[in-house]
Parts: sequence; C-alpha cells; structure tokens
Amino acid sequence: MKQQIRLLGIDDSPFTFTDKYSTVIGVVMRGGNYLECVLKSQVSIDGDDATFVCKEMIKNTRHRKQLKVMLLDGIALGGFNVVDIEDIFSSTHLPVITVTRDKPDFNKIEDPLKKNFIDWEKRLTLIKSGEIHKIETSHNPIYIKCSGIDIEEAKEIIKISTIRGAIPEPIRVAHLIASGITRGESYGKA
Amino acid sequence: MKQQIRLLGIDDSPFTFTDKYSTVIGVVMRGGNYLECVLKSQVSIDGDDATFVCKEMIKNTRHRKQLKVMLLDGIALGGFNVVDIEDIFSSTHLPVITVTRDKPDFNKIEDPLKKNFIDWEKRLTLIKSGEIHKIETSHNPIYIKCSGIDIEEAKEIIKISTIRGAIPEPIRVAHLIASGITRGESYGKA
Repeated sequence: MKQQIRLLGIDDSPFTFTDKYSTVIGVVMRGGNYLECVLKSQVSIDGDDATFVCKEMIKNTRHRKQLKVMLLDGIALGGFNVVDIEDIFSSTHLPVITVTRDKPDFNKIEDPLKKNFIDWEKRLTLIKSGEIHKIETSHNPIYIKCSGIDIEEAKEIIKISTIRGAIPEPIRVAHLIASGITRGESYGKA
Repeated sequence: MKQQIRLLGIDDSPFTFTDKYSTVIGVVMRGGNYLECVLKSQVSIDGDDATFVCKEMIKNTRHRKQLKVMLLDGIALGGFNVVDIEDIFSSTHLPVITVTRDKPDFNKIEDPLKKNFIDWEKRLTLIKSGEIHKIETSHNPIYIKCSGIDIEEAKEIIKISTIRGAIPEPIRVAHLIASGITRGESYGKA
C-alpha cells in the first residue's frame, strides 16, 4: 500500500446544550504526514443528518477521485447523530473506518437513547451494527469498525497514518481543527 | 537547530467587501511535520488591531513556553491591518519571520493606502520598515523580513519547516484551515 494514500478524516466540534449545530471538519491527508485540504460542514445536534453530511462532503470535494478511505472519529457526529457507514460506502463507494479509543459500551448508551429519542431503536441498531475489532497499536489499543474494506487493509491504513499515540493523523488533525476553531484553542484528544 | 522546533504559523481567512472581520488561524507545529495545536481569533478588516491580536495569541496559548519563532503570511492580516513585527518581538520576546511569495511592490500599495486611510503614512512606514531578504528554496524564491532573529537562523527555520514547494508548513497549514473553515473547502496558496 502507498505511504502517500489519500485519506479523509472527519470529526465534529465540541458543543454545549444551547447549541443547535456542531461544526464538522474534514481533512484530506496524504498518509499521516501531509495536509492537502480542509473541509467544513455542520450537523444538527442529536439530529439525523450526519450520514447525509458525510456523503455530501465526500461527493463535493475536488479531491474525491484521489480519496481511498474515510476515517471517522467514533460512530456519531453532533451527539447521537449516528453515521450509517454502510450507507456511506454503498452511496459513495468510499470505504469507511470508524475509530474509538474505548470499547463501545452499548448498555451505557441504551438508557439515554430510550429517554431522549422516539426512534431510539433505529439509532441503537445502527450503533450496534457491524463487527468491532480491537487493534493493537504501539500505544494503547483502539477499536474500529469497517465498511467496504477488510480488516487487514484497515490495519495497514491505521499503521501508515498513525505518527504518535494511537489515533490516525487525519482524525487527530480534524479533531484539533474542530476543537480549535470552536474554543479558540484546541484541546483534548480525538 | 532541533528539527522538532516549535513554530507558530499565522494566516487570515479570505473575506468579502461586506465582512467586518477576518478569522485569524494560528497553528503550533513541531518543525514542518506534526500539528500540535490550532488557535483562532479575528481581526477587523482594514483595522489596526492585527498586532494586538498576534500578541494575545502568543501570550495566551498554553504552548507559549515551547514556542521559538512566529511565522506570518505577509505583513498584514485582514486587508491593510498591518502587523508591527518589531512590537511583537519586543512585547513577547518571540522572534518573527514574515514570508511572501512575491517581492513587495511599495509603489503598488501606496495609492490604495492614500485613497482609503487617513493614517496611510503610518501604515506605509510600517509596511516599508525592516530589510527584505530574498531566500532561495528548492522551489521558487521567497521574500522574508525578520524581527529578533538573524537571517542565517531564519533561513534554517524555513528549511526545516518546508516540506513541499516554497512555503513553510506552519503558514501553509494555517492558510488551509483559515480558507477551509471560511469557504467550506480550502483552496489557493498561502
């Protein structure tokens, strides 16, 4: 696999209870080293437009033809605005890998979902769908889900694009931008 | 000089005639490779607060102690909001290097300044102050001004922090972010 493979990393901005929207940042990088492009969009907090917003970001960028994989920080943007990664792959033909530091705890998610959403079952099904793989890194392990790409290829992409710590650069950089432009100074980890 | 030297790159966002403010993005990078932090502020277009905004960005970031040099895209932010790099160095003790692709043409600047600003002489003096050095790169030459740092050290910093083309990464990355978050997709060159 090429070290310079073009990856799209996506993360959302931190938000407060009074916000209606969360900014979504996409970054196009060559492997883990070179930033080529910054994209911006937004999702409604706890809404249901995150999948659409990701698809539009992919379809509309002038880098579309070079992109090989999308990397997403977690499985949702803007709270419980869940991303359907199967839908993204089938609509755009761009494979997707979601990355989290912690193993998803579905029991912890079920109660707030039931409490706050009429369509909680639909959201929970989407969150639970797909296999979770534990990936060992030189740092802590990470947990990933894949759509349109097999686990061995996904591992290689994560290896190529991770410089320090456990999180691939396209996600880490998208996080720093989303956090920095919202708070004035970036903080926290992707 | 350390390859991992901490650099602050600053650039402003594109704006239109109806905008009052331009977003200013600062990025903290280790050399030309690793993004550590994203900062955001704003300047008034054609105002006189750019020097103050740069100084506040430097003073307020939690990375202040690690920063070794500030790199600025040009000599102004938000139109003709001129940055006083001598003032920045004397106030913050952080050396400053300004970088432009083209040799500044003062004759071209004088007329619009005279036409639009009562204090045009002050702005022009600031723009003209300091020596301009032509720096050869592996790509096209660039033109720089320095404050608080000698030309040989400045050349080394530019060499360390430039990956592709002629523009140091902290400025190139700040430009991509400022442009991307304003337009939805970054474009153009720093």
